[in-house]
Amino acid sequence: MKWWGWGQEGVAFHHHDKPGLAPFAYRMAGIDFNAPPVQVPDLAELDVPASQAPDGLRSALVEAVGAEHVHDDDLTRVVHTYGKSMRDLVRIRRGDFGRVPDLVVYPVDEAQVEAVLRTGLDSDAVLIPFGGGSNIVGSLEAPRDESRPVVSVDLGRMRSVIEVDETSQTARIQAGALGPDLEAQLNARGWTIGHFPDSFKHSTLGGWIATRSSGMQSDRFGDIADITRAVRVVTPKGVVATRAVPVQSAGPSVREMVLGSEGRLGVITEALVQVHRLAEERVILAYFFPDYGSGLRAMHDVAASDAAPSITRVSDAMETQFTMATAKKGSRLSALMSKGVKVYAEKRKGIDLDKMCLSFIGYEGSKEHVARTKRLVGEIVKKHGGFGVGSGPGTLYDQKKFDTPYIRDFILDRGAYGDVSETSSSWATLEVLHDNVVAAANKAFAEQGTQGFVFCHLSHSYHSGACQYFTFAFQPPAEGDGLAVYDAVKHAIQQAFIDNGGTLSHHHAVGREHKPWVGDDLSSAGAQIVSALFQGVDPGRNLNPGAIVD
Amino acid sequence: MKWWGWGQEGVAFHHHDKPGLAPFAYRMAGIDFNAPPVQVPDLAELDVPASQAPDGLRSALVEAVGAEHVHDDDLTRVVHTYGKSMRDLVRIRRGDFGRVPDLVVYPVDEAQVEAVLRTGLDSDAVLIPFGGGSNIVGSLEAPRDESRPVVSVDLGRMRSVIEVDETSQTARIQAGALGPDLEAQLNARGWTIGHFPDSFKHSTLGGWIATRSSGMQSDRFGDIADITRAVRVVTPKGVVATRAVPVQSAGPSVREMVLGSEGRLGVITEALVQVHRLAEERVILAYFFPDYGSGLRAMHDVAASDAAPSITRVSDAMETQFTMATAKKGSRLSALMSKGVKVYAEKRKGIDLDKMCLSFIGYEGSKEHVARTKRLVGEIVKKHGGFGVGSGPGTLYDQKKFDTPYIRDFILDRGAYGDVSETSSSWATLEVLHDNVVAAANKAFAEQGTQGFVFCHLSHSYHSGACQYFTFAFQPPAEGDGLAVYDAVKHAIQQAFIDNGGTLSHHHAVGREHKPWVGDDLSSAGAQIVSALFQGVDPGRNLNPGAIVD
Repeated sequence: MKWWGWGQEGVAFHHHDKPGLAPFAYRMAGIDFNAPPVQVPDLAELDVPASQAPDGLRSALVEAVGAEHVHDDDLTRVVHTYGKSMRDLVRIRRGDFGRVPDLVVYPVDEAQVEAVLRTGLDSDAVLIPFGGGSNIVGSLEAPRDESRPVVSVDLGRMRSVIEVDETSQTARIQAGALGPDLEAQLNARGWTIGHFPDSFKHSTLGGWIATRSSGMQSDRFGDIADITRAVRVVTPKGVVATRAVPVQSAGPSVREMVLGSEGRLGVITEALVQVHRLAEERVILAYFFPDYGSGLRAMHDVAASDAAPSITRVSDAMETQFTMATAKKGSRLSALMSKGVKVYAEKRKGIDLDKMCLSFIGYEGSKEHVARTKRLVGEIVKKHGGFGVGSGPGTLYDQKKFDTPYIRDFILDRGAYGDVSETSSSWATLEVLHDNVVAAANKAFAEQGTQGFVFCHLSHSYHSGACQYFTFAFQPPAEGDGLAVYDAVKHAIQQAFIDNGGTLSHHHAVGREHKPWVGDDLSSAGAQIVSALFQGVDPGRNLNPGAIVD
Repeated sequence: MKWWGWGQEGVAFHHHDKPGLAPFAYRMAGIDFNAPPVQVPDLAELDVPASQAPDGLRSALVEAVGAEHVHDDDLTRVVHTYGKSMRDLVRIRRGDFGRVPDLVVYPVDEAQVEAVLRTGLDSDAVLIPFGGGSNIVGSLEAPRDESRPVVSVDLGRMRSVIEVDETSQTARIQAGALGPDLEAQLNARGWTIGHFPDSFKHSTLGGWIATRSSGMQSDRFGDIADITRAVRVVTPKGVVATRAVPVQSAGPSVREMVLGSEGRLGVITEALVQVHRLAEERVILAYFFPDYGSGLRAMHDVAASDAAPSITRVSDAMETQFTMATAKKGSRLSALMSKGVKVYAEKRKGIDLDKMCLSFIGYEGSKEHVARTKRLVGEIVKKHGGFGVGSGPGTLYDQKKFDTPYIRDFILDRGAYGDVSETSSSWATLEVLHDNVVAAANKAFAEQGTQGFVFCHLSHSYHSGACQYFTFAFQPPAEGDGLAVYDAVKHAIQQAFIDNGGTLSHHHAVGREHKPWVGDDLSSAGAQIVSALFQGVDPGRNLNPGAIVD
């Protein structure tokens, strides 16, 4: 894993086969794709704070997991210092390491996790569970001024699908399994978990649960909160093991306390998740709508109908233009904006091409289910002035869906900043929230004296509302701190979520980044209840004390 | 409301138009339907403990809600002492009142609830929220030895549908609204909540949330935990108001802590719930299966298919015989066991009539959805050796579904005991769990020297399992304490749930009745986490301190 960016060493984004992208970025935000990349510093030249682990703690952890699974080299410690947010990458490249963990331990099973936790509590150390390290809201970092020893507990050795119950359609899976790991093990037996977040390749089951993740096929398979039916967690009170049943009426849901707990209650070691037979048919179709509002109304009507697609997604006009700009020359995506399509949209449908919005709808299941759902969705699309443009672009979207974070690293290498932030809100609020978030971001860009752009798509539809996922990028002024500009823009967007009926996050969690809005989101009393829960379970604040609430 | 039984004064069960029922009850459990009913005592002749409310508390509550909404008469206090479990009815008829509330208050809005809570905490009183009073697991009673003043907080004046958001398909409803109350208000605008527990007529939205209720159409509309998207709760930390959004990634779910909290975190005042347009078509069809196992396997296959019925229900052979015994002479239900059906089942399908099991499947939605789902279900039924017998019995079931509790009162009047207990477990465990629970109950009957019967149906299917709902009845020995026999039988059933992979309750909650199994259900550490939550929010144990965990 790169210590300074997303994903594996050697994998990177390039734009030379996408002729529309550099002009788009330059026009919208003054980002120069052809600027020479900033050289990433050599870690050896940076001043990594030394490990402060007391000998007693180290030897107790060696006792717990074995000497070869207790690491304190700089690279390992730096990789475990932050997640992969924009802020994280900027800080780490600057050598602003904050509170680097003193030790990184790799337990192999639940008994070792218990030993690690006991050791940590006995030594008054801080323990931070670590899965794939892809978090983008600051869930993985110790408080900067933490004076106690800090131990990162990496679940990377616990990656097995333990058991598939084919009758009950569930699987027991270890928390450290990365997406591709567990999906390959399930696929081999004919099953899928149906959970594919953008971070899929670099995130784990335990991380999904700890942050309330959502995958792009959530319309069919549910969010991780729905998929997860039982959890095992090593806590200061002992091993919490909720019962492997579909539904319980046994008091407040312990399972739902663990979901989203970001390590503050303990270390998730295993979960029982719903699995599904691999579908007979799977296809993603593309559609165009006259504008974003008509696209939103169509998604609403799909959610209120008998249709049950696996993906509902509609981009606003700006994101549509961005997506078209990422088209490779001669690709099926570029063919979407062929003269024929343009003429059809303008002349036959009376659509203003500048407002036109691209939508992807996914279908998955039996051939009959897919055919019926396509028909029902097709009728709704038509009612809202939209039209279908086939399966080509959807196939491409499906292939490229995990690549977006690499673009962010690419522009950061050119001195520009980009990030994402997402919310959910009720159907009635979606369009106004969208417009006000875009206005708030643009106002922030202007106030910061920078040029930037923001765009959005709806994804993840529910009975009562949907998620809107915003992406923004800007070229900071030559003078001044880009991170301060970022803070201002990000703050404006988050505040606009809250002011317009949205939640602080639909599926990226709270971490440190979103803590200022927890009281708005849960109400002050609700936030106090969460604090009381953490205080009761972990009175010494040894478990990831920087996350969620103070 | 009857102080000594289920439902309204003047409504009762009678059996004279159901010629098969009395012989069934006598044959199976020696229950004599024609025995003269026990006279329910006159409340005035019973020794109701006097209210011990201190004057200061009383006057502060009068200040909070008005003098006419603070009651301390015996009847009101007795009605608020227990719920409506078998144990409750036996005790109350015996004059075994336990700890009768000293005062019953009726706040009209959230501000009054806040004033009541503040007053209660300031006076170190115990506060127990009260909705419809239909709870059957002991959620409503104060500890017998409670020395502090006890106040029952009746939400009966807070029963409005405040707002329907037609775009977002949600409604804001006050917690004290009874099922028929809120459903009538929603129906008038063309909507339904889709939540119909057996207790529907006598239970409230707040009660459903506080106990994690499930309604008979849960397959389509979800359990109350799914239906409820946001809650407002008056707690010692202030008013908790979770955000009105479909999904949050904002830490552990406060909404899911309130669900099932049985008053231990505070008083639920309002919820935002999902609502649905009244369906174009609604029908319940009846089927027969060769035996319970084939019925269970068919329900599994329905859950794993694209079919989406609103109700899945299959009775075991004993419950099937009971249901047939409740048929009115010449009714459509009795026609089910016509000679033609019997001959068809035996000769054409090779079914042993003693093992044959009745199933109801509900369909609700557009005409097209209903037709398609019927077809898909029909194919699955056939595959498992079953056959359809039309819509008549289902219509009857639909009309009579809320009447069962009256039968329990009827047999109690004849000195016999009956009750229900339900669990959920994974598909793989259902049949073994069923057989072992039946065996455990029969063993307990034998050990107690009593004759009894137990039967069961599956209802509420999920992706990974289903609920099984057991009903048992017995005639206690002439000598000895019927309640002690009841305890032994009920304990045997609950223990068999846990020993066979089930939860302590699918939708009736913990109360006091199921507390012994909380540690098994949530694990000891999980139960401690729940305790820590309650302790943190309510350190004085003023809020319904007898419920869920000690």
